[in-house]
Amino acid sequence: MTDFLALQCAIVQEYARPDQFITQNFDYEWRNYSFGLQPEVDQWEAAKPLTVAGFDIYHPSAQDLTGKEISFGGAIARSVKKDNYFILETEAQGNHGWLHYPGQLRLQAFSHLASGSNSVMYWHWHSIHNAIESYWKGILSHNLKENATYREACTIGADFAKYGDRLKNLRKKADVAFLLSNESLTGLKWFAIHPDLNYNDIVRWLYDAFYELNIECDILSVNDVDLFSQYKILVTPALYSASDSLVGHLKHYTENGGILLSTFKTAFSDPVLKIYPDDQPHGLTDVFGMTYDQFTDGVKVGLKNCIFQNSTNSVKNTALSDPSADSTDLSAEGIRYWMELLTPTTAQTLADYDHPHWGSYAAVTENHYGAGTAVYLGCYFDKATLKDLLTYIVTKSDVALPEVQYPVIIKRGTNEYGKEITYYLNYSDDSATITWHGRDSVMLLQDQPLRDGDPITIDGWGFVIIEEI
Amino acid sequence: MTDFLALQCAIVQEYARPDQFITQNFDYEWRNYSFGLQPEVDQWEAAKPLTVAGFDIYHPSAQDLTGKEISFGGAIARSVKKDNYFILETEAQGNHGWLHYPGQLRLQAFSHLASGSNSVMYWHWHSIHNAIESYWKGILSHNLKENATYREACTIGADFAKYGDRLKNLRKKADVAFLLSNESLTGLKWFAIHPDLNYNDIVRWLYDAFYELNIECDILSVNDVDLFSQYKILVTPALYSASDSLVGHLKHYTENGGILLSTFKTAFSDPVLKIYPDDQPHGLTDVFGMTYDQFTDGVKVGLKNCIFQNSTNSVKNTALSDPSADSTDLSAEGIRYWMELLTPTTAQTLADYDHPHWGSYAAVTENHYGAGTAVYLGCYFDKATLKDLLTYIVTKSDVALPEVQYPVIIKRGTNEYGKEITYYLNYSDDSATITWHGRDSVMLLQDQPLRDGDPITIDGWGFVIIEEI
Amino acid sequence: MTDFLALQCAIVQEYARPDQFITQNFDYEWRNYSFGLQPEVDQWEAAKPLTVAGFDIYHPSAQDLTGKEISFGGAIARSVKKDNYFILETEAQGNHGWLHYPGQLRLQAFSHLASGSNSVMYWHWHSIHNAIESYWKGILSHNLKENATYREACTIGADFAKYGDRLKNLRKKADVAFLLSNESLTGLKWFAIHPDLNYNDIVRWLYDAFYELNIECDILSVNDVDLFSQYKILVTPALYSASDSLVGHLKHYTENGGILLSTFKTAFSDPVLKIYPDDQPHGLTDVFGMTYDQFTDGVKVGLKNCIFQNSTNSVKNTALSDPSADSTDLSAEGIRYWMELLTPTTAQTLADYDHPHWGSYAAVTENHYGAGTAVYLGCYFDKATLKDLLTYIVTKSDVALPEVQYPVIIKRGTNEYGKEITYYLNYSDDSATITWHGRDSVMLLQDQPLRDGDPITIDGWGFVIIEEI
Repeated sequence: MTDFLALQCAIVQEYARPDQFITQNFDYEWRNYSFGLQPEVDQWEAAKPLTVAGFDIYHPSAQDLTGKEISFGGAIARSVKKDNYFILETEAQGNHGWLHYPGQLRLQAFSHLASGSNSVMYWHWHSIHNAIESYWKGILSHNLKENATYREACTIGADFAKYGDRLKNLRKKADVAFLLSNESLTGLKWFAIHPDLNYNDIVRWLYDAFYELNIECDILSVNDVDLFSQYKILVTPALYSASDSLVGHLKHYTENGGILLSTFKTAFSDPVLKIYPDDQPHGLTDVFGMTYDQFTDGVKVGLKNCIFQNSTNSVKNTALSDPSADSTDLSAEGIRYWMELLTPTTAQTLADYDHPHWGSYAAVTENHYGAGTAVYLGCYFDKATLKDLLTYIVTKSDVALPEVQYPVIIKRGTNEYGKEITYYLNYSDDSATITWHGRDSVMLLQDQPLRDGDPITIDGWGFVIIEEI
Repeated sequence: MTDFLALQCAIVQEYARPDQFITQNFDYEWRNYSFGLQPEVDQWEAAKPLTVAGFDIYHPSAQDLTGKEISFGGAIARSVKKDNYFILETEAQGNHGWLHYPGQLRLQAFSHLASGSNSVMYWHWHSIHNAIESYWKGILSHNLKENATYREACTIGADFAKYGDRLKNLRKKADVAFLLSNESLTGLKWFAIHPDLNYNDIVRWLYDAFYELNIECDILSVNDVDLFSQYKILVTPALYSASDSLVGHLKHYTENGGILLSTFKTAFSDPVLKIYPDDQPHGLTDVFGMTYDQFTDGVKVGLKNCIFQNSTNSVKNTALSDPSADSTDLSAEGIRYWMELLTPTTAQTLADYDHPHWGSYAAVTENHYGAGTAVYLGCYFDKATLKDLLTYIVTKSDVALPEVQYPVIIKRGTNEYGKEITYYLNYSDDSATITWHGRDSVMLLQDQPLRDGDPITIDGWGFVIIEEI
Repeated sequence: MTDFLALQCAIVQEYARPDQFITQNFDYEWRNYSFGLQPEVDQWEAAKPLTVAGFDIYHPSAQDLTGKEISFGGAIARSVKKDNYFILETEAQGNHGWLHYPGQLRLQAFSHLASGSNSVMYWHWHSIHNAIESYWKGILSHNLKENATYREACTIGADFAKYGDRLKNLRKKADVAFLLSNESLTGLKWFAIHPDLNYNDIVRWLYDAFYELNIECDILSVNDVDLFSQYKILVTPALYSASDSLVGHLKHYTENGGILLSTFKTAFSDPVLKIYPDDQPHGLTDVFGMTYDQFTDGVKVGLKNCIFQNSTNSVKNTALSDPSADSTDLSAEGIRYWMELLTPTTAQTLADYDHPHWGSYAAVTENHYGAGTAVYLGCYFDKATLKDLLTYIVTKSDVALPEVQYPVIIKRGTNEYGKEITYYLNYSDDSATITWHGRDSVMLLQDQPLRDGDPITIDGWGFVIIEEI
């Protein structure tokens, strides 16, 4: 696919004028919406001949709108060319059941800009009258007349015209990076941890927890090793396939002061999915200060002796009281699908297994290695506990942890005028009031000045855009 | 299929004696029983070369016997030749789990006659000893001896011999007609409203509600436009595909005093399933006095401001306390699968959506058009509420609404002697006592006279047949 | 398959030395573990050219370890050559989620010996690093180093070396035999009782109940008619296909004093699955003293007038309070999937149906025939009730019924020194204390003498081996 796209681009390039550019519509793992890393193509490689990256992002809306796909998909889109990107397709009225509530079309559009997109284009202008996509509805309905969606889209266009020069080409700078790997995705497809837990589930489990804590994340590929040092925290969700070279870079990153956060199954196999015949995690046992040689599923097992239990998100380590937790997410015991029986050497245990037979093994460990720290998650557990653990890690670092959390989402960047732009995006029915902490600024759409300590009220499914003066 | 059947009939006709007739065994959409309109053939067209329509009807029995398939299937059977029909096959002991309770074989047999059948033939005489249908059990079991089913069948035969001349060729006259359409069925198969709600689900949703209210219904095809005016109420369940000509006849029917009752998705596409590019419902916006251009699924949404809420069946618009409601039928909120956001022009709103964002749109509307009335259901909701709505509509019309409701079912017709025949069929374990309202009559099987006001007790799974004197 | 295996054996035999033997790795119906009789081959026929029978047995472990598959699989393995057998493969760390608790690997190994195996071989030595079985984990993990499983396996080897000569070639003698039939399995695959109740479900329903009562059972094929008389109780679970000859042997067995215990569907069809055209159960109506000609599924139906209700296992005939009952096992009413409407002639009714319409039919019957007794189960019901029924039958026989029941399992046999060996195997987390009833003996592993009345404490997932002095 990479070769074919390069071939196409070369042909187009022959005929393109100097002022013309080439883009291409990439997409994601599709679960009736844009869920995770695309399994069928290495987009970092395939995007090389393009001028600008292009993506389509589709997601549930109405009561199910969370902004997560816009944010996660945007992070991948920024990653492939390390630049801004185009949203070449996104839903207008969308597929069955996705009709946006009033205001959501605007919220979605500006969420794309907040993630670094330079465009929002809809599928499609009007709903079509024949063939299979008749009910992927456009801006206009089948009667081709003005409707609620059209009227809302008009306000978006007007705002783009008015404020676009202050919002486009947003430069974003994250403290946290996720390291994603197509080989790991494929490896865990063939050697599945559990039918209900594939690679992208684990990626999104971690990504969504950071998202809900309002910690913005970038995404890196396994070829971005030179960029590791730019980040304070590097996350490797189920990095099943890792070359010795990549393992060396992870080690070097930690040794030099980085915080490495890895999950179960990291560095288990080599690039051709041959399992490493030495101690796990391969090449990293001294970095993590622990090893393991046995694992099983997580049945009737929880966490005990949690060091990070006093964090704000945790009700109890086994709790599912977090309203953002999926009801199908977990059993009452808190662990599910997978558990590695960790034996620390130099590591501190952050949590043990609460189980009659596996209680002597560690579940989560933290190790100081060189100037850095390496945290290892040996099992999959509920999102509330995960957010506690992330809070614990972030609090010990110099990564900022905002007071405001999901459903109000903060997105930041710097515009072409060198001014910091801050979005507050409210993904809920209820209005929210927060306090501005920062330099003297202006709320762009309201043209209203803001000083440190000023309250800001954001309507349900509303947003504000703040530009530094 | 239509052509092939015509070809076969033509061959048979060459050899048939003048006193011989041709029939054919039609069936229905099969869901392990005879559920709805047959999707694979236009039976009205295919039946043209036949002398007499023939059908097979199979359905759950024992605790699941309701009579609904016998009644619905009979209405289709009456419709294809606009005449009486033959039941060429029906269950004896039936498929696994269908063994009839004592009395049910009789109840089933006379239910067929009450719907207009002139025969009850069983699959089959004796249970077979080889091959795939070994457990579609016959009248006799595999031992080929008399059994409970055989003995009950003998009483049916004896009663047919004794009373058959008063029961056969029953002329039925309904006030309500359903307009069914193979094109709409196919259209909603390709462009599904919801995986769990196909065309026949919607047809049976409405048909079963009328059935439980004891309002008999005929069934018409899209070519029966000349018959519309014979009915007081014309129902179009999800008539997705409708020609301009058919739309014109619906308009004309209403204008001239008919009550048109249509659901969501009516008149959405033309006969080749191209979606109409003008206001929905196509050609009928003035008839219904409303239009819509947006729709979505029904999630966490109910009905409010129900005009018809005082009717007898309704506990609460969102209630599922109706014992005849399927437990899987609906969410607690009452609406499921589909909702159109209706904007009335001249129509009265019968119910609004109870939803934080869609509350300003109508869910059910009623409009006076010419001398008639047009009611539009913009969404799918629970059966108890539907029965309330039908009660509201029927009460305002001059269609009779009996006091007696399901599980006691009333079926009427006129026999060859010009006498009115009334069946009371009790589809439950419990005996029921009702009061006779009508002319001086006789209970045929008991040879017992009846006068207005006399009580009648019907055993569980029993029935009475009453003939006007 | 039988012919092919014979051909292979003949070739090997040409080259084998006199001191060499031929075995082959048979297996079972696979439900992600070794569940029932292998459907694809007649193992009795196929094993004829072998010197020693060989099998692989895999099963859930950890919290799901019950020993049932080891016992049931072992009974089949003993049956095919009427001799001891080899376990040529069984799980080491096993498939995903099967990692044994500490002690379980030992418990499993000695359970195989207790059932008559002369070997325990593991799949496999070390976990492999490539290809599809990478996660069917071996004794060693992928790092090829000593681990908990290896260390536990070493203790097994040491004990085999020390005690093997007293434990190998265990001669087992059961009072109860199950008669299994590949033709019946296939017959009930084509003519299913219920999608969730196939032949092996019924076999295991009965086998597991005997197992939990600590009554050891042998397994016979339909060609083992000469062995019937060696057993006090002969069980025919759903013996759907039975030749006239086999029926004659069952009759003869009962007439001569045996206890015949048959379920629904026994002797329904002939060897080529043609249903017998006479009274059911074919050829056995006088043996069972009852017949039936109608049947249906078991919906909202229980048992009443249970003669065997005072037995120890029964809480209530409809109860599911038995902790060993599967939660998905049964509806609250106790009967499920199938019920035959039995009409006794000479039989005593042991239980009637508790149902508004089928209450006059018997559900379970007992008949004295010649010097023997024939019990017939007309329906499938909950395991607690089944254990009550078996207790009732066994108590009236001279088959011993131990006080100790599952999760402590007793296995007996005679070793090569003519001494009785008794295993107590504890399939639970909790330690158990029982009392030794028997001759002066010694607990082998502890080298501790035992006298009648001495208490024995067995750790959770532990066992003791007792040898008569």
